[in-house]
Amino acid sequence: MTSGDAAAIERRPMEVSLDDVIAAGERLRELVAHTPLLSSDAIDEAASGRRVLLKCENLQRTGSFKVRGALNALLQMSPDELRQGVMTASSGNFGLGLAWASKLLGARASIVMPSDAGTLKRRAAESLGATVHLCAPTLADRERVKAKVARSTKAVYVSPHDDARVIAGQGTVAVEMVDEASAPASVLVPVGGGGLLAGIAIALKGLWPGVRVVGVQPTGAGDAARSKAAGRLIAEDAPQSVARGLLVNLGVKTWPIVDALVDDVVVVDDAEIVDAMRLIWESAKLVVEPSAAVTVAALASPELRGRLGDGAAIAVLSGGNVDLDDLPWKQLQPSAVGTA
Amino acid sequence: MTSGDAAAIERRPMEVSLDDVIAAGERLRELVAHTPLLSSDAIDEAASGRRVLLKCENLQRTGSFKVRGALNALLQMSPDELRQGVMTASSGNFGLGLAWASKLLGARASIVMPSDAGTLKRRAAESLGATVHLCAPTLADRERVKAKVARSTKAVYVSPHDDARVIAGQGTVAVEMVDEASAPASVLVPVGGGGLLAGIAIALKGLWPGVRVVGVQPTGAGDAARSKAAGRLIAEDAPQSVARGLLVNLGVKTWPIVDALVDDVVVVDDAEIVDAMRLIWESAKLVVEPSAAVTVAALASPELRGRLGDGAAIAVLSGGNVDLDDLPWKQLQPSAVGTA
Repeated sequence: MTSGDAAAIERRPMEVSLDDVIAAGERLRELVAHTPLLSSDAIDEAASGRRVLLKCENLQRTGSFKVRGALNALLQMSPDELRQGVMTASSGNFGLGLAWASKLLGARASIVMPSDAGTLKRRAAESLGATVHLCAPTLADRERVKAKVARSTKAVYVSPHDDARVIAGQGTVAVEMVDEASAPASVLVPVGGGGLLAGIAIALKGLWPGVRVVGVQPTGAGDAARSKAAGRLIAEDAPQSVARGLLVNLGVKTWPIVDALVDDVVVVDDAEIVDAMRLIWESAKLVVEPSAAVTVAALASPELRGRLGDGAAIAVLSGGNVDLDDLPWKQLQPSAVGTA
Repeated sequence: MTSGDAAAIERRPMEVSLDDVIAAGERLRELVAHTPLLSSDAIDEAASGRRVLLKCENLQRTGSFKVRGALNALLQMSPDELRQGVMTASSGNFGLGLAWASKLLGARASIVMPSDAGTLKRRAAESLGATVHLCAPTLADRERVKAKVARSTKAVYVSPHDDARVIAGQGTVAVEMVDEASAPASVLVPVGGGGLLAGIAIALKGLWPGVRVVGVQPTGAGDAARSKAAGRLIAEDAPQSVARGLLVNLGVKTWPIVDALVDDVVVVDDAEIVDAMRLIWESAKLVVEPSAAVTVAALASPELRGRLGDGAAIAVLSGGNVDLDDLPWKQLQPSAVGTA
């Protein structure tokens, strides 16, 4: 992204309102899971003794929150659009979410997926009836295959995060929190493209105005953290992290919302992410992917303690799609985490 | 166990009533987790399309239902008894439950644990303040160490399953189901010593009289299945299974209840248990131990389809304490289970 693009993005207004999120909540109510808020004594202890509620979007249909935004987008399409089918480019959870939503509404879904995404994700999308189009794992080839699929299918493209309907759908995670819990001091949200963070920030700044909304990124994919610190969008050219779902930059629709409404964005390194992931598996008994564990990693980080403040927190666990034959604690240094 | 013992056991009346279970529910209400009923499309599909609700006792404090029975027993002890401390013999979850309950009430806990139970379980009990006494993994040595600990500590012994207060406490799992769900066709419960099954049967035969209560055991530890089929208690001398928490025979207090109130007890083999465990991890995103997975294994078994009938089921997931460095799908044949 050039600095000219970035300047143009910064001037854009926010395109999603609290009313959009609330309307999405009504639209999705009977179709997606109302995910529970769970807790674990060991996680409270790791978070310097504060009370932590885990918003379990790993327990959402298709294993992540992405199905909310995908379905909210499709539910606002015309019958003609749905007949044409939909497409996206996603190496992971948004592809699954779009495939599931398309199956529910009887639309054809095409997913452009990098060849290194793994057979598990591919088979899961195909088992939901989607057609997977593989591309090389480069931006250029992804764009080439996207264009080719668009020409051949006439499918309507849906961005995984840079779409107002998708952002509003992801914000319904926050509406459920507000229905169920009392306001904590802070809500922590994983940040990749920023759709989840933007949607949650819009909802909470309206519904829980005193609550701090904090994004969490891997150190190696920290565009939102650096952009917030600088007050202007700074893209990360070569993001790297064990949290593969977060290797995406903010977009033209998410950055203005993150800029205006999010209180802070912090980073955690891969070793902290893997430790937190293991802690969640062992003590909360929840299968979460590395991208989901960043929020608990931030709460457990001694360096971030001052910055995150005290008081109860809600940590969003964004998804649980992970290959059980390829767990990250076998790749990184094993760490000693207690069990309950 | 000799046949003389068995005959004596069979003549014993039931020692736990519905009122005992309801009183236990009141006693425990604010102290243990009210665990959620969750579901997964892939598990419904594996269970021939029936609706399956998972009663998630893996999300209970200390990672299993055992804390309910332990705490219900301790809450009925006198101050003098609590001052003397409590003890049990357990290689696993009951030891953790007793340690947690003792810490809550300020009592000393001693756990006799076989030397092959693994350092993880031992460290977890010790981190809750319990004193662990190791014994050789034989019945004789366990009894020797139990007697020694009893002499030296004067602690009050609490049986992991053969205690009316423990059985009533485990039955509170069913009270929560009844509060939250409508009556399914059947409720499936893992069976080791039978405390959970007995407690649930007492509660459900009073509260949901039309619901079938079905126990599930590993093929290699099928004393309850064989006893139910024969109409008399037949112990298993050398139980073997990947579901280590279920390698225990029914006791003098649990058999009469299982005999009188449980509709059926079925068995599943270790390969089915490991497949079901992996399905639960991959599709429901829940960390469960092999002992918990037997209920889903039974619902997924083609051979048991006729015997279990159709209609919605609640499958109790009894616990989630498992060593993440020693997962059973690395030991047995890997099996192909889809992901969502």
